[in-house]
Amino acid sequence: MSGVTLVNLWVKNSAEIQRKRVETKPFITNPKAVEKCTRYVDTDLNRAFSPENLSAPEGDDLPYEVQRAQEINRIFGPKGSPEAYDVIFDLHNTTSNMGCTLILESSKDHFNLQMMNYIKKAIAPASCLVLLNEHPLLKYSTSRSIAKHPVGLEVGPQPQGVLRSNIFEAMRVILKHALDFIELFNEGMEFPPCTVEVFWVSERIDYPRDANGNIIAMVHPNLQDCDWEPLNPGDPMFQTFDGKTIHYQGPGTVYPTFINEAAYYEKQQAFVITRRETLVASAIRKA
Amino acid sequence: MSGVTLVNLWVKNSAEIQRKRVETKPFITNPKAVEKCTRYVDTDLNRAFSPENLSAPEGDDLPYEVQRAQEINRIFGPKGSPEAYDVIFDLHNTTSNMGCTLILESSKDHFNLQMMNYIKKAIAPASCLVLLNEHPLLKYSTSRSIAKHPVGLEVGPQPQGVLRSNIFEAMRVILKHALDFIELFNEGMEFPPCTVEVFWVSERIDYPRDANGNIIAMVHPNLQDCDWEPLNPGDPMFQTFDGKTIHYQGPGTVYPTFINEAAYYEKQQAFVITRRETLVASAIRKA
Repeated sequence: MSGVTLVNLWVKNSAEIQRKRVETKPFITNPKAVEKCTRYVDTDLNRAFSPENLSAPEGDDLPYEVQRAQEINRIFGPKGSPEAYDVIFDLHNTTSNMGCTLILESSKDHFNLQMMNYIKKAIAPASCLVLLNEHPLLKYSTSRSIAKHPVGLEVGPQPQGVLRSNIFEAMRVILKHALDFIELFNEGMEFPPCTVEVFWVSERIDYPRDANGNIIAMVHPNLQDCDWEPLNPGDPMFQTFDGKTIHYQGPGTVYPTFINEAAYYEKQQAFVITRRETLVASAIRKA
Repeated sequence: MSGVTLVNLWVKNSAEIQRKRVETKPFITNPKAVEKCTRYVDTDLNRAFSPENLSAPEGDDLPYEVQRAQEINRIFGPKGSPEAYDVIFDLHNTTSNMGCTLILESSKDHFNLQMMNYIKKAIAPASCLVLLNEHPLLKYSTSRSIAKHPVGLEVGPQPQGVLRSNIFEAMRVILKHALDFIELFNEGMEFPPCTVEVFWVSERIDYPRDANGNIIAMVHPNLQDCDWEPLNPGDPMFQTFDGKTIHYQGPGTVYPTFINEAAYYEKQQAFVITRRETLVASAIRKA
């Protein structure tokens, strides 16, 4: 409930997100789901911003979230057009032990990479990690993807329908620094070249299942809550209900995250595998 | 998902819950809610076993969970009758940091108190606490209340829709010892008098809210995850969104639990307050 609560506070009083040179619009993307305290009503909104959905003939027979995606695209888009909003911060919580995570969709978005660098330095010694989902098959049509610079903010662990003060404050602080960065950029500050460590999504791992699709093993206790920590060939990955261990068989060290996220059981995903890389961001300065 | 997963395993293969002198029946109480991965469909089943509901004229116009309560009462009850099942273990998970908790409804149920003593000794050095809800106003009509000896088993923290191996195994081990206890009792073993420490529910504390019922403060970080730890007068209890601390003002030390449980926001409950007491259980032996 961190994002929903923050947005509702900002709708009432926006002082906290106001900056001289930044126009901000706090917005609840899925009010029906908020009301029902569920992730979605008909279909996952955060997968709904595909060209097919956004160009589908309008009508009440469309799933609620597809109608909503079209509406959001009209307000903040159109996706891919010059009129689209510059930045969308898409506020999410996860049940995984991911801490503060910023999610990017392009390794070539130097504005966003510079923002990541700024936020990481601003919140130190606290840390926040950058997840990059640019995989051609694993990337999906996020709500934020209609903006020119989409930024996902994922903070956890927090169960659904719960508001934890530590998670709430962590999200709030990241947003503050993100807006400060844009304000500085708009003031004309030059940001020199820098490097940013990212965790690049490379594979999706499902739970072991039987022929009927039922899960037959759990995330191994050695892996549970160990998001971002190295997983090496031979390390325990799953534990079956009768106590057998299933080991990771990949060729080298990887960094799992979104480990045991509640919303991803239906997406056949126990965790994603990432590779750690360092990207170079060019200097940026407002034209 | 611990309880649902265990019951489904036992329905397929009941070897683990079989005992020579105990008849067991694994049972999913709310299959529609399981299918939708939600707490309930129409109304909370674990509040539905009231005399009014159980005696209401049957019919499809009744809420799903009331129909289901009547059905469960026919199978395992009738509540309060000699034909009712002896024991129901009602398997629950919580998002609160409660560890293994056994929930009783009567301080005078010496069979259950002896069972608590047995389980506590059997799982040591791991611990499991006993919550006693015998408060005339705070007690509610649980599913397990149709049995002669109702036992709630609440294990956490675990988010909804998630299966954590540590929580799963903890629940499984407690059930094993509980069944072992009944087996020993049915074999004729005498259990001498003993004492059992219980946490006795005395009050329900809601989140601070505005005139519209919206929450205006979160559980304070000093209290979050501190289930069963002493809360003293003057200790921080809530933190408002603008950073103010609300302190506990009660007359003496209490022990909060169910702190920030997701399912209890709708029940206007941030946590319950308990008082620690030691009960004496008489000797028991099968007649």
